[in-house]
Amino acid sequence: LAEGADAIAHGATGKGNDQVRFELSAAALAPNVKCIAPWRDAEFRKEFPGRAEMIAYAEANNIPIKASMKKPYSMDRNLLHISFEAGAMEDPWYDATTPEDREMYVLSVSPEDAPDKPEYIEILFEKGNAIGLRHENLDAILAELGDVKSTGQQDGYALLTPYGVMRVLNLLGGRNGIGRVDIVENRFVGMKSRGIYETPGGTILLAAHRDLETLVVDRESMHIRDSLIPKYAQLVYNGFWFAPERVAIQALVTETQKTVTGEVRLKLYKGNVMQAGRRSPFSMYSEAVATMEGGQEEAYNQDDATGFIALNALRLKATARQGQ
Amino acid sequence: LAEGADAIAHGATGKGNDQVRFELSAAALAPNVKCIAPWRDAEFRKEFPGRAEMIAYAEANNIPIKASMKKPYSMDRNLLHISFEAGAMEDPWYDATTPEDREMYVLSVSPEDAPDKPEYIEILFEKGNAIGLRHENLDAILAELGDVKSTGQQDGYALLTPYGVMRVLNLLGGRNGIGRVDIVENRFVGMKSRGIYETPGGTILLAAHRDLETLVVDRESMHIRDSLIPKYAQLVYNGFWFAPERVAIQALVTETQKTVTGEVRLKLYKGNVMQAGRRSPFSMYSEAVATMEGGQEEAYNQDDATGFIALNALRLKATARQGQ
Amino acid sequence: LAEGADAIAHGATGKGNDQVRFELSAAALAPNVKCIAPWRDAEFRKEFPGRAEMIAYAEANNIPIKASMKKPYSMDRNLLHISFEAGAMEDPWYDATTPEDREMYVLSVSPEDAPDKPEYIEILFEKGNAIGLRHENLDAILAELGDVKSTGQQDGYALLTPYGVMRVLNLLGGRNGIGRVDIVENRFVGMKSRGIYETPGGTILLAAHRDLETLVVDRESMHIRDSLIPKYAQLVYNGFWFAPERVAIQALVTETQKTVTGEVRLKLYKGNVMQAGRRSPFSMYSEAVATMEGGQEEAYNQDDATGFIALNALRLKATARQGQ
Amino acid sequence: LAEGADAIAHGATGKGNDQVRFELSAAALAPNVKCIAPWRDAEFRKEFPGRAEMIAYAEANNIPIKASMKKPYSMDRNLLHISFEAGAMEDPWYDATTPEDREMYVLSVSPEDAPDKPEYIEILFEKGNAIGLRHENLDAILAELGDVKSTGQQDGYALLTPYGVMRVLNLLGGRNGIGRVDIVENRFVGMKSRGIYETPGGTILLAAHRDLETLVVDRESMHIRDSLIPKYAQLVYNGFWFAPERVAIQALVTETQKTVTGEVRLKLYKGNVMQAGRRSPFSMYSEAVATMEGGQEEAYNQDDATGFIALNALRLKATARQGQ
Repeated sequence: LAEGADAIAHGATGKGNDQVRFELSAAALAPNVKCIAPWRDAEFRKEFPGRAEMIAYAEANNIPIKASMKKPYSMDRNLLHISFEAGAMEDPWYDATTPEDREMYVLSVSPEDAPDKPEYIEILFEKGNAIGLRHENLDAILAELGDVKSTGQQDGYALLTPYGVMRVLNLLGGRNGIGRVDIVENRFVGMKSRGIYETPGGTILLAAHRDLETLVVDRESMHIRDSLIPKYAQLVYNGFWFAPERVAIQALVTETQKTVTGEVRLKLYKGNVMQAGRRSPFSMYSEAVATMEGGQEEAYNQDDATGFIALNALRLKATARQGQ
Repeated sequence: LAEGADAIAHGATGKGNDQVRFELSAAALAPNVKCIAPWRDAEFRKEFPGRAEMIAYAEANNIPIKASMKKPYSMDRNLLHISFEAGAMEDPWYDATTPEDREMYVLSVSPEDAPDKPEYIEILFEKGNAIGLRHENLDAILAELGDVKSTGQQDGYALLTPYGVMRVLNLLGGRNGIGRVDIVENRFVGMKSRGIYETPGGTILLAAHRDLETLVVDRESMHIRDSLIPKYAQLVYNGFWFAPERVAIQALVTETQKTVTGEVRLKLYKGNVMQAGRRSPFSMYSEAVATMEGGQEEAYNQDDATGFIALNALRLKATARQGQ
Repeated sequence: LAEGADAIAHGATGKGNDQVRFELSAAALAPNVKCIAPWRDAEFRKEFPGRAEMIAYAEANNIPIKASMKKPYSMDRNLLHISFEAGAMEDPWYDATTPEDREMYVLSVSPEDAPDKPEYIEILFEKGNAIGLRHENLDAILAELGDVKSTGQQDGYALLTPYGVMRVLNLLGGRNGIGRVDIVENRFVGMKSRGIYETPGGTILLAAHRDLETLVVDRESMHIRDSLIPKYAQLVYNGFWFAPERVAIQALVTETQKTVTGEVRLKLYKGNVMQAGRRSPFSMYSEAVATMEGGQEEAYNQDDATGFIALNALRLKATARQGQ
Repeated sequence: LAEGADAIAHGATGKGNDQVRFELSAAALAPNVKCIAPWRDAEFRKEFPGRAEMIAYAEANNIPIKASMKKPYSMDRNLLHISFEAGAMEDPWYDATTPEDREMYVLSVSPEDAPDKPEYIEILFEKGNAIGLRHENLDAILAELGDVKSTGQQDGYALLTPYGVMRVLNLLGGRNGIGRVDIVENRFVGMKSRGIYETPGGTILLAAHRDLETLVVDRESMHIRDSLIPKYAQLVYNGFWFAPERVAIQALVTETQKTVTGEVRLKLYKGNVMQAGRRSPFSMYSEAVATMEGGQEEAYNQDDATGFIALNALRLKATARQGQ
């Protein structure tokens, strides 16, 4: 990053979160580097008050850009998602699911346009990370993607880099109409903004990961981790990836992932990610304990529930009698 | 409840959460009432070690029950959902989405079996509660349900009781394949258990409620409320509805719902609940502030972002330089 | 506030929290009012770069101020506390407890200078608020204060307004050396700052309130409330008193205070606030349940602990066996 | 622990937390070992209904015990503290600070009985752990303790094991009347219980550790850590030391301690632990940034506060205008 450079420039409009993300990351990684943001310069804005004037200028000068006066909405894309804002979407009551907006979407078809036949995907996890995939046509998918190759085999799964996993799941999710979200979000700079997101691969990965966790992570660890999710999401969204508090929460999350190793089977169908089985060498599920059939007294003695409930009830009884 | 009675009996098996819910509620509401649970009585269990013996006894004595040796799984149903446990589902790798299990489900068809045409539903909220519905065939739906009548009209919506809203949404969700969940849950008594749930109406209601909140609830209020959701859910699941800490969290949640009044439009299609617009007299979304076009300096001055980011970066720079 | 005025001016230095508190409160209460802060104006700062120049100007023009070049530290005082910053205290290793700084303190003597004899104070609470005091020389104290009068009697306590309670406790705490704190705090604008605080009355009130809560508030309600204290304190410190999230947390806190009615007895002695008894009509303490003597089987059956522990242990055993 | 043994026995009364701590720890570390608790055996309790009968039996059979009918309260002691319960303390209004109870206390004198002259102690921390002490009479203190020896020197501090640090601080705190607490606590088994604690060394250590943290830990890391303290304390108190959720929170806490290296100076005087300076190579305090004097524009530009406040105010203004 800072090999010789003493300043960073970016073209964010001054109203969004990206400017914050760029500059907070720079502050954390290169505290002596200066940030330049033309859109926050009053002189600059006198010449280019908004996107319309900038698009006109680019067209007049043959500078190639993706936005146009015909498609006046804003698009931001990365490996995980693409977002659309502005334009007709500035009215939160506007319905963006109709065929009229079919052309706007990039990563996915709509659920209505997805195939009528479900397809299965199986995902192999190791300590919380997806490391391999199993799909009946994986070779064809990799050929279609072009830039992704399997790095090996394990338990019948094709091993892939994180990038490879994401690319395959984006393709699978996209063609099955998975991962479209329409939301009014809260930008860090203090305003609400309506956006449409496509996150096909991320949606599948989240469902798979959560599903495996239910089998292998202790109940109370999960609850504590879950109570920190809003904070963690807020930090990432607001640009505090390199902040010490994000690192501290990460340490807790990583600790909970030690046993998140195993397989998840999902069924993808017209926008749905359906749980279709999970298994793990670290499974905490015990048929012997949970079964409703008899003959398992050793593993679980029903009499214990009597005392368990009685002592949990003690303080509720005290509250009920309080002040009588 | 306690009009004359000095004891309560229930038939929970001694391994689940229902026994806890029954008895903790009794403790909070009627602290002097005794609870009787035959399945936790060793004598009783000697005669009926498990569900198999109990089903046999019931069949031998012509006692009508819903479980049978043919459908050996357990079902629990209320207005909000139905759950299935035990039987083939005791293997967490078992795929319960296939046509073979089509007969098990009660409240919903599978996404694959749902109609090919989406339908829209609009929901009217007041202070966080759904009070009315708009649907092009609402009359036909109410006729089909039989026990639900509209209690009036408001802004083009048919007003309904909470029971009525739930009944209509269950029907709509169910026929569109919405709300099936397959999960390994963590019972309060300490064991993991695999269950399949159908929650068609609840799934729609949750999506609608969340969607309206994004428009009308302040960012930070939402984050605090969200950080308490795992705790709140845990309390309800574990049977602490009448506990003082649930009431305390409720006070916070209720406070955040003061402005959750408005309309949400959803598109239901083969398992999907798609956001298709929301509006409210309490909307905090301001086109003037959020727009990417020029001429709005009054409402939002981009120069402010410079200072905002600089001060947010200050402690990150201090951390980056720490110990150098 | 905004009766006719269309702007608010304040003299905060541009580095502290007070400017934020003033302006955020104004934003919440009078969103159309402008804020003027001379110290954040570059022109103004050219003439007055810092406190030194401002003090010189004031002295040259006979403007009466409290700071001086001899006492160059900053003081901020309100009913609850006084704070000292800057000057010698800018070195965090500086020891401000020695006799050399005796003259700096305003609200309290040092513990070493406090009387050798303890004095007792008893505080009467109603729903979380201190409403009355009992002290053997209360009349003399009220005479000394001058501006505080009892508004009535209840259970042997002199009833007082919140202002009156605070004034009396400040006097009592101050003369007993209570409430001095030396801290490196984290200003909202992103920097650390070392400050010395005197909070005599607040320290006593906090100790009393907490003490009564232990007797009358349910365990789990207390835990949830306590987990929100860092957030609540942060909001108040950063100036978000009128923000919706502060109001939401307040609703939870207020709910927990319904039963915080009763008496607390404290012993004040040379900097110490010692718990010396608490009682309440809402006491949840039951000798019958807690006693270590026999004959109380009805209220608490020790056998229940066996099942209680067994089920709490179930998931720990599952974790211990995980992956074996 | 489990070298050959297949069961563990303990003498807890069946009403307290110790039984839970013993047995949950056993469950986590040796899930196949059985726990035997005579006081929870109905047969046993028929012969010994309470402490009184047990004391009588012990006296009749010449079994040496610490409790007696003359001192009928219960004492539990470890390196960190001693607690007293039962007896006269079963009345929460009972004042245990008077000279009548002077004989009960073991680890500390009362503040009134402490020396009239303060003494200073300096503590050296490394990554959150106290590793060394500096005191003008440390040699005499070590001689008095007998079982503690310094393991080396660093920066003028005598290095000590954790045990050694605790022993010295217990002696210093005890002789200065530090660390007595009178509290109504909430046992895990569901009842409230009044106890008196002496924690002289722990009180000093907590004050020192917190004080150093204010200088070297980032604001937001601290807030997140603090919000988890009630949960962490609850887990330790309830016996879940070896539970996975305690380990997960520990990972977060440990992460925040990376920079908690440095020195703290405290003044001990008649029950008070007074902050008297802290310093660290990882100090995040910067005089250049925090000073109220001029000429520091580079490090902190006051103009930035204008934009910072404006954007923080944006959502408050939106809330103020909501629904108008």
